[in-house]
This record gives sequence, structure tokens and C-alpha cells, in this order.
Amino acid sequence: MKIPMNELTSRAQNLLERAGVPSKAAARTAETLVSADARNIHSHGVVRLARYIDCIQSGGIRPDAEVKIIDEGPAFLRVSANGGLGIPASCETIERLIAKSADLPLAAASVNHSDHYGPAGYYAMKCAEAGLIGFSMSNTCPLIAVTGAAAAGIGNNPFAYAAPAGKYRAVLFDICMSVVASGKIILAAADNHPIPEGWILDKHGHPTTDPQAIYDGAIMLPLGGHKGYGLALMVEMLAGVLAGAGMLSGVNSWNTVPGRDADTGHFFMTINPAFFGGLENFNARMEKVIAELTSAPKAEGVDKIYYPGELEFISERRAQTEGIELPAASAAELDRAEKLVQ
Amino acid sequence: MKIPMNELTSRAQNLLERAGVPSKAAARTAETLVSADARNIHSHGVVRLARYIDCIQSGGIRPDAEVKIIDEGPAFLRVSANGGLGIPASCETIERLIAKSADLPLAAASVNHSDHYGPAGYYAMKCAEAGLIGFSMSNTCPLIAVTGAAAAGIGNNPFAYAAPAGKYRAVLFDICMSVVASGKIILAAADNHPIPEGWILDKHGHPTTDPQAIYDGAIMLPLGGHKGYGLALMVEMLAGVLAGAGMLSGVNSWNTVPGRDADTGHFFMTINPAFFGGLENFNARMEKVIAELTSAPKAEGVDKIYYPGELEFISERRAQTEGIELPAASAAELDRAEKLVQ
Repeated sequence: MKIPMNELTSRAQNLLERAGVPSKAAARTAETLVSADARNIHSHGVVRLARYIDCIQSGGIRPDAEVKIIDEGPAFLRVSANGGLGIPASCETIERLIAKSADLPLAAASVNHSDHYGPAGYYAMKCAEAGLIGFSMSNTCPLIAVTGAAAAGIGNNPFAYAAPAGKYRAVLFDICMSVVASGKIILAAADNHPIPEGWILDKHGHPTTDPQAIYDGAIMLPLGGHKGYGLALMVEMLAGVLAGAGMLSGVNSWNTVPGRDADTGHFFMTINPAFFGGLENFNARMEKVIAELTSAPKAEGVDKIYYPGELEFISERRAQTEGIELPAASAAELDRAEKLVQ
Repeated sequence: MKIPMNELTSRAQNLLERAGVPSKAAARTAETLVSADARNIHSHGVVRLARYIDCIQSGGIRPDAEVKIIDEGPAFLRVSANGGLGIPASCETIERLIAKSADLPLAAASVNHSDHYGPAGYYAMKCAEAGLIGFSMSNTCPLIAVTGAAAAGIGNNPFAYAAPAGKYRAVLFDICMSVVASGKIILAAADNHPIPEGWILDKHGHPTTDPQAIYDGAIMLPLGGHKGYGLALMVEMLAGVLAGAGMLSGVNSWNTVPGRDADTGHFFMTINPAFFGGLENFNARMEKVIAELTSAPKAEGVDKIYYPGELEFISERRAQTEGIELPAASAAELDRAEKLVQ
């Protein structure tokens, strides 16, 4: 059964309000999560809501925290989420950053003392919609192996960018640093299929092809070996070190220990094409790039070459007219959230 | 036989001067290439010199081109290399960018109408040595497969960052976007060892484990599949689209067709920790991060966990005192360069 987007948003907002989140922050959180479901990124949609409420109810997240400006200049902004939800703090920060960016070639904002900020790409897309190239990143608790190590040492740090692209909605790229998402390993475990070497280590730090290890302390491996590790460190440097947030093991897992302050950090940055040849010129050139990329000779079995973000935008357009078909896990977590706030 | 660094630099500079490159540009190019050899990145060292001279002699590179400033503001700079060598244009650009960055939270510079710019990390390191977080990237002619395509559609675009790190020399990360460097495949071909699926496609766009394909039109695959492709597109967007340089197939291969103007683009960016809590604080926090990363439990067979750049810095220190042991290919290319300028 498909749910209209506004109905799902209202329901999510209502659940958050009943958990003590002020109306505006609840609305922002609901809209951000539902945008992920609309783009078919259900892993970062309303499935997270009940866990946010777990964190609120066990004291790990302050539902009514007010965002504090730590420091500010024409081209930068340092924010504290003040122990509150990551999404409303990030929404407020990205709005302020976009306002600053209108007359500047570059601007950046950091957020500390925050929590899970939902879909990284959401904030980058806000920049693209304002005619800017936008970058969005966050650290997380340690989840992937440092190159040479037998344990999880650094976060599976999300990184996203988005940019205007003329007649195309935008270019949108949103990744984490592991070879594959844990969901893929869970599917292989259900099917009892071995997984390729190089995806995970077992809990002792040994390479394994057994997907069941995901339920027994497996450690995710970074994409491209040392390359993914170095990219995770780049995010840690900006969203952790520079932002003044928790770093590496100083970031707590909101997902497994909801009662602890996560102290997550985020980093956002804009580049304004107006200062590099003009937005119109940028748009025309992006159209040319997308046209060339998507008209490449197709690999066997491929019907169409999509540009980054295109599949998400197709889902989004469909969701806007037809509503969202929630996966069972998301529906179950919404029901669980209902019970939590009764 | 080891060659002292200054001797190798003088020899490289002399060769370039005899090819018509003015003394300052020749010195900058020589120093940059030798720094790569010193850091044990011989693929981007003096081995490239003879090819640069090929390009000069066949009209693809103007040896005496003067860098032009296209546009400039307090926090940005747009440069044209004017059809000259990529390295001296990038050296001049990064110096100007660092000067701008001292009193700003962020600054960026683009270069167009350029050519191969040598080791990406060199320019990022200049920023780190000035107390800044530095980013460096360049597009290249199409070399890797777009996700879903059976042909090379986008450059194997290099991306580097470096940052100050207190008592450590710096953090330095420098990658291209393919799963592995072509050198690894050439080694497997020499040993007649099959390579893992997922490294390359054959010339028809089919997956192959035959390393010999590298000599027959093989297409490199991006690291992490669509993730590496999206990162290559990020670089293309900044170093190509935004810089006003050649884009995708509009960038010509200086390496295979030396007589053609490459029209390569570069992009450099700085973030100044002075505006995000102060450099001293940043350094202390980076020390903490490196200490934690390198003290993780080691994987089997690993003696020491290195932080990104550490191995390069160890080589560099050794090269400074003991000189550089050039690989045979580099020595042969220097000899070839001698003949070219006789």
C-alpha cells in the first residue's frame, strides 16, 4: 500500500512531537527522512525514527536542544547541535550556509555535539537547488577497518556532493566508505551465499567469505582498500577534527547504545559557480558532460546509463505523484515508534 | 647507484631548459618531479620528463607559455596555463592561492588550458606546509569506464589532500580513481598471473581476468564501482567544468598523442584551520587521531600501521640524506630525454 508523501511526513512529525521534539525541528526531521524514502534510500528514511525516539527516551538525545552558533564570519559558520537531533541542526546550518554563499566563491559550516544526520545527500541537494555546488559529510562511530588493522578503527563516514546541471534536476552523489552496505551482506546471509573476499573481516580481523559473520562482530572493509580509508580520514578531519566534534572512538554509536551522547560532527561546504565563469555557463557545461557520459556504449545487459542521482530523482518524481511504498522494516519501525510515544 | 636529489634536480632542469623551457619554469618542473621520486612515487617522477619534451617538440606543449590570470577575487583565482607545461602553471597557482588563504577560511583556484601536472599530492603538501588543509585535483583524458558503459568515458582523475598534523610531518593522501594502477596489471602480465575480476574490462567492454588485455585496449574500472565513478565525476566537475578546461573526451592524451594540445584542467582548494578553532588546536587533535589510528590492533602479518603519507615521508627523508635510487625505466627515459635535446 502506497502512502502519500505528505501523509507520511505528518505521521513522522507527529511521532517526533509526541516524543518531545518542538514542532519546527520535528517538521524538518520528518521532511528530511521522508525525502530519503522518496528517493528510494529507505535505509536513511523513516526506518530511523523509532531509534531516534529510543535515544530521546534513554537520554542520549535532547529533544528540545537549541542550536548554538559557536563562531561565525562572512564565509564560515561553526555550530553546536547542543546534544540534540542531528537533522534539524543540519537543516538550520545548511540554510544559514546557503544564505552566506550567495555572494561568495566558497563557504563552509561545521556542526559538533550532534547525532545521526540522516541522508548526507539531502543537504548537498539544498545547495544544488540554490545554484551552488554543495558538499555534505559526517563522521560516525568506528565501523570500518583502518588499513593494516584487524579492528574497526574509523567511521563508515558518509560523503555527498550535488550540483546544478541545467535541464537535469541535478547531479547527486552520496556514499559511505565501505565496499558494500551491510544490507547486502544481510541478504547474502539470508540466502546462504558466500560473499566475495574483501568485503568484511570476521571479528578476529581475518578475511572471510561467510556472510553470517555480519551477525558476529564482522568489520567492514573500506572501498578500494587504502583509498577508501583515506577518504574516510578526510571526512573525519573535516567533520570531526575541524568541527570540534568527537573523533574516531570518541563518537558513540547512537544505534547500539541509544542512551549515550553520540558527539557526532558534520561538515558542509559550497562552491559558487557564479565566481567561476557564471552559473549559466556551468549549467550548459554540465549538460554537455551528462549527455556525453550517458551516451557511452553500453555494457552487456545494460539498457540505459544513468547519471549520478538520476535513479533517485526518478523514484522521487514517482513518490510525489503516487506516494511511497514503504519496506516492511520501515513500517514496523513506525509502528514501534507509535508504541514508544503512547 | 643512488643520485643526490639536487644533482637529479639540476639534470632535469637542464634537460628542460635545453628543450626551450625558461629557467624558472624548468626549475619548478624539475623540483616537482624529483619530489615524487623522493617519495617513492616514481610513476610521477622524472620518468615523465622525456614525454614532456616529446610534447614540446611535436607542438602539443608551448615551452615558454606564460600563465595568464583570467579572473581573481580575494578568495578565488582562475588561471590559464596558456598551453604550457602543467607543473609550472600549477606551482605558480598554488603559491598565489596560499598567499590568498592566510586570512581567509577558504579559497580556491582553477587552471585551464594546461597539461599533465605531475604528482597531485605535491601541491596539497605545499598547503599543509603553510598550515592549511589543501586539496589538489586534475582531470585527464578518458581512461576509466563509466558505470554501465563498455568503454572508457571519464578520466582516471587524480585527487589529493594534505593537512598539518602537529609533530607528524603531515597527512598526505593521493589517489587516482581506478581499482589498481596499470603498473600492477603490467606486473601480473609479466608473471602470467590472472588478475581478479573487477580490475579491468577488455577492449570489447567485457570483464576479464587476463592481464595481457592491458596491451590490447583494456579499460580500467573505477574503485568501488559507481563510487569511484562518482568521485571521478566530482573531479571532472571542478577541474574540468568549473575551471573552463577540456571536459571528458575534450581532454587529449598527452601521453599517446604528444602533438595535440591536452587542454587539461586542475582545481586547488584550501581550508584554513585558523578559522575553525585555531591551528594549534587542529594540530593537537590531528596528533590524537593519528595516534589512535596507528595503534589499532594489527592484522596478521602487519608489523606497523602507517598513517596516510607516512611511507612517502620515510622515503623522502632517506632520499634527502642518501639520494634517490631510480628505477631502470626512469633512468632510460632520462637518457632518452638527453637524446631528444641534443
